[in-house]
Amino acid sequence: MTDAQDTGREGRRGREARRAARASAGQHAIPYITRNIPLTEILSAEGLELIEHNAETVLEEIGIEFRDYPRALALFKAAGCDVTGARVRFPRGLARRLCASVPPIYTQHARNPARNVVIGGNNMVFAPNYGSPFVHDLDRGRRYGTLEDFENFVKLSYLSPFIHHSGGTVCEPVDRPVNKRHFDMVYAHMRWSDKPFMGSVTHPERAADTVAMCEILFGKEFVAQNTVCTSLINANSPMVWDATMLGAAEAYAAANQACIITPFILSGAMSPVTVAGTLTQVLAEVLAGTAFTQLVRPGAPVIFGTFVSTLSMQSGAPTFGTPEAAKAIYGAAQLARRMNMPFRTGGSLCASKIPDAQAAYESAQTLIPTVHAGTNFVLHAAGWLEGGLAASYEKFIMDCDQLGAMHVLAKGIDLDANAQALDALREVGPGGHFLGCAHTQANFETAFYRSSVADNNSVEQWEAEGKKDAAQRANAIWKKMLADYQPPPLDPGIDEALHDYMARRKASMPDATH
Amino acid sequence: MTDAQDTGREGRRGREARRAARASAGQHAIPYITRNIPLTEILSAEGLELIEHNAETVLEEIGIEFRDYPRALALFKAAGCDVTGARVRFPRGLARRLCASVPPIYTQHARNPARNVVIGGNNMVFAPNYGSPFVHDLDRGRRYGTLEDFENFVKLSYLSPFIHHSGGTVCEPVDRPVNKRHFDMVYAHMRWSDKPFMGSVTHPERAADTVAMCEILFGKEFVAQNTVCTSLINANSPMVWDATMLGAAEAYAAANQACIITPFILSGAMSPVTVAGTLTQVLAEVLAGTAFTQLVRPGAPVIFGTFVSTLSMQSGAPTFGTPEAAKAIYGAAQLARRMNMPFRTGGSLCASKIPDAQAAYESAQTLIPTVHAGTNFVLHAAGWLEGGLAASYEKFIMDCDQLGAMHVLAKGIDLDANAQALDALREVGPGGHFLGCAHTQANFETAFYRSSVADNNSVEQWEAEGKKDAAQRANAIWKKMLADYQPPPLDPGIDEALHDYMARRKASMPDATH
Repeated sequence: MTDAQDTGREGRRGREARRAARASAGQHAIPYITRNIPLTEILSAEGLELIEHNAETVLEEIGIEFRDYPRALALFKAAGCDVTGARVRFPRGLARRLCASVPPIYTQHARNPARNVVIGGNNMVFAPNYGSPFVHDLDRGRRYGTLEDFENFVKLSYLSPFIHHSGGTVCEPVDRPVNKRHFDMVYAHMRWSDKPFMGSVTHPERAADTVAMCEILFGKEFVAQNTVCTSLINANSPMVWDATMLGAAEAYAAANQACIITPFILSGAMSPVTVAGTLTQVLAEVLAGTAFTQLVRPGAPVIFGTFVSTLSMQSGAPTFGTPEAAKAIYGAAQLARRMNMPFRTGGSLCASKIPDAQAAYESAQTLIPTVHAGTNFVLHAAGWLEGGLAASYEKFIMDCDQLGAMHVLAKGIDLDANAQALDALREVGPGGHFLGCAHTQANFETAFYRSSVADNNSVEQWEAEGKKDAAQRANAIWKKMLADYQPPPLDPGIDEALHDYMARRKASMPDATH
Repeated sequence: MTDAQDTGREGRRGREARRAARASAGQHAIPYITRNIPLTEILSAEGLELIEHNAETVLEEIGIEFRDYPRALALFKAAGCDVTGARVRFPRGLARRLCASVPPIYTQHARNPARNVVIGGNNMVFAPNYGSPFVHDLDRGRRYGTLEDFENFVKLSYLSPFIHHSGGTVCEPVDRPVNKRHFDMVYAHMRWSDKPFMGSVTHPERAADTVAMCEILFGKEFVAQNTVCTSLINANSPMVWDATMLGAAEAYAAANQACIITPFILSGAMSPVTVAGTLTQVLAEVLAGTAFTQLVRPGAPVIFGTFVSTLSMQSGAPTFGTPEAAKAIYGAAQLARRMNMPFRTGGSLCASKIPDAQAAYESAQTLIPTVHAGTNFVLHAAGWLEGGLAASYEKFIMDCDQLGAMHVLAKGIDLDANAQALDALREVGPGGHFLGCAHTQANFETAFYRSSVADNNSVEQWEAEGKKDAAQRANAIWKKMLADYQPPPLDPGIDEALHDYMARRKASMPDATH
């Protein structure tokens, strides 16, 4: 090896370390974004009224089914609904009135108070990928997720300054029994991060376990008076809520913990093929599901959720980053604001199997509308690959970098005297150069967002460094981040109590596969 | 080879042909977009006033230099400016008053009237990459552009239904003499496409050649009365207009042809490091350059142009797709509307050397703001790679696919009775499936935008088809498009006259390298 090559290698190592440092800044994390840019609203007031009118027609004429959950039927009957079998029909306006008790904004507490997030209003909270059975990285390819992968994504989310929330099922730890893995997942969020997190929703008992573990972490009294978890309650679209989700929603709402009431829709299969028809169904399903939580406990925090994408009408495959999905994001955000509820949608969604240009175009075509629409809680903000079937390590890093850019965009255009830069224009003048001027010297360190992933060098330098693509650079970054990871401190007594609780509960039941 | 493998290969071939067919539909081209979605405006009215006030301060106090072009100085002096050497200082409000004669909207005619574009107002026109000395494709890598490459990009732009304008220097035909290549470029636009195009700006004589060739193609009388080319006039930022660009601008404005008056700025080098400071300079430079065109010929069509990106303050390299560039796009669009002028900015810009995830994220982070800002003329809408140094065949195809998605987004949300889909909701009901319902059957063919590039299949099918990334699929598409290309008809007499003119002019001067 020549000296020059050696120097080059040192240079590369230094650059990789700096990239990783920019991507991981746990101690400097921004707790959440408060937007300083206006909303993009593509539906007129008349359009919103029309869609609400039609949603009320769905609730009144067609109704929503609450299956295998007699308590929901009893609550709705008592509230004045027409209940026939599992079908609940709402007199016009009733569902919206029941939803009026939802707080338009709430604080979800983290065990580190500096990480508390305020959900609603002008705020935006980014949370990682959710629900993927597989994981993907450039070295090992696609494989089933394990608890180790789960913990890795929790650690990466903890380290990223642009992820505000630890999320929930960041990937499925398939190596753990289905009926016990929720303990390991909730514990991982509590132990390896100090950001807020989501609870288990796969069984009402698992929701109760989540609340019990929160009581150990935060104290019983604190949990009784504060929201310490936000959990994902998906509808069984079209127009069905099932017992599993209703049970989890009831457990959380009764404990004053937050639910994201979310129609999960691939338009064309689970809703009409049109955006307006889909938005109508979304509103009807959200109003019905939210009304249930408010009957359980008026004032329980709820987020108006919407997951909408489209189908390939040729193959039936889900498609992402499509313009119809973007329109649904914009429209649903407006409906949520009309209902005076916090809003969740979007993320960095894509159908690609690898972190290539398709993945990036589709993710940006989802994320940017998500931000401009004014979404308050963004699940799947980083790591989503293959229609959600896989959580990608490299895409997680690339998406976080995009989230960093969104932090800067959301600040809007600064107009103070320094930003106006008239003195710089006077100093430099026609034909001059700004790089050396006093204003540039005073501002250059913070002037521009610095990507951790992008390569902006000359083609010659890029070639000399091995012609790496963005995913290959991201590969080096996540490895360095995990290698350098340091867990946030946790009181040993609390840690022991959590372990005791999990050991006792795990011992109380045999392993199961559902 | 087994039968199954053979069938698989046939399936692939069929799929590739269908992808190419979706990407190329010259005969079904949409002439331009008329937006049906609202604008995203991130500057307040007070912010706009402040920036205009500061731009007037720049024009009054600092002034703009018009170098080596006495005629400009004479015109400005006569108009009431303070002229000292090349420096022109404008009394407050004068430049804006001179710009008031710019038409807020104009039609650029194409030789096929069905391709005429209306530039300004609610309209959006997409044009390809401009100015790259290199080209890039997956097979041959990066190399200098040739006339063959130039013609290929003209043909691909002609074939794409989502590119409305043939552009100008789609890549530099470096194999032709510098002082004669403009003939070949203008001819290629005229012969291999029937969409509108841009003229040469590298010398006033070459601008005159462009106008002369337009007179052959459209007829002298028609050109005297109509705008048949739109050409790119870049400032030499900061605050300088040079003789080459002024000469070309004068030639075009005098002939009532359109100029895009564009500060070309890498913020931090050619303008202050802040967005507000950069917008101030942009406005001052555009007002001064446009005022010159209006002094040459009041009412000559002009587009308010802005090319803004950022620098890596560490390496000095240009960076693209940054949030600061997005903010400049939004802000400049608002300034252009305030000046009542058509607006050009943005495109599908990136710094990546290859069509990877970096290229796609950065391009989407430029294109989506470009669209939401309400840009009227989008140069570099497809094919831009490596900070504009290279025109990429694969990225051209991928970007066009994104432009197709933008066509759908710009339509907004349809709210007619069919779109409301209440009958579909009634037919399907709770727990049903929409794929088979009458409404879906009636609408599925046009319900969703169909990407020509995205692979939405299962991972198993994607693996069986060779694990191609987006760029590899795009590679097959452009080859098929070029293989199937058929030129639009051109009157043989006109073709002969164009050749005669070019032969005579080329013979009149020796080859030169500048």
